[in-house]
Amino acid sequence: MKFQLRIEVSLKPGHSDPEGETTAHLLNELGYKIERVNVSKVYSGILETESLKEAQMKAEEMCKRLLANPTKDNYAIMIEEEK
Amino acid sequence: MKFQLRIEVSLKPGHSDPEGETTAHLLNELGYKIERVNVSKVYSGILETESLKEAQMKAEEMCKRLLANPTKDNYAIMIEEEK
Repeated sequence: MKFQLRIEVSLKPGHSDPEGETTAHLLNELGYKIERVNVSKVYSGILETESLKEAQMKAEEMCKRLLANPTKDNYAIMIEEEK
Repeated sequence: MKFQLRIEVSLKPGHSDPEGETTAHLLNELGYKIERVNVSKVYSGILETESLKEAQMKAEEMCKRLLANPTKDNYAIMIEEEK
């Protein structure tokens, strides 16, 4: 079975986000009143497994082993069967 | 008025995504059957404007002026009033 996977990795609250800070600074300089800018990353792809349950387990594993840093990152997983 | 802004910037189809390719390669090496990995970025923040309409206009402008490259990026904007 094939699944459309979407994993969003974002910083845990309290961790500094230099890219977000720079973006906020540049947007303020351009005249926008914006604050608390955070940048997160979304990984999307097609995952092949035997079942939805296996896909969920593999996605969790992928986050823990490669995509997210458990010390500083949160992650959110979305899975949909690929038609 | 304050608005919670969420802007997702992703590559247009057909543009090469080296970070996605490397991620797919590493995940394959770890034993996951995953393909077509793409990486996109989400900017979130609190934007202050006079109205929802102005917030939408400013968010579009921010994408065009700073956050997205019109040659290679698509962007999606989500706006919600901040309570």
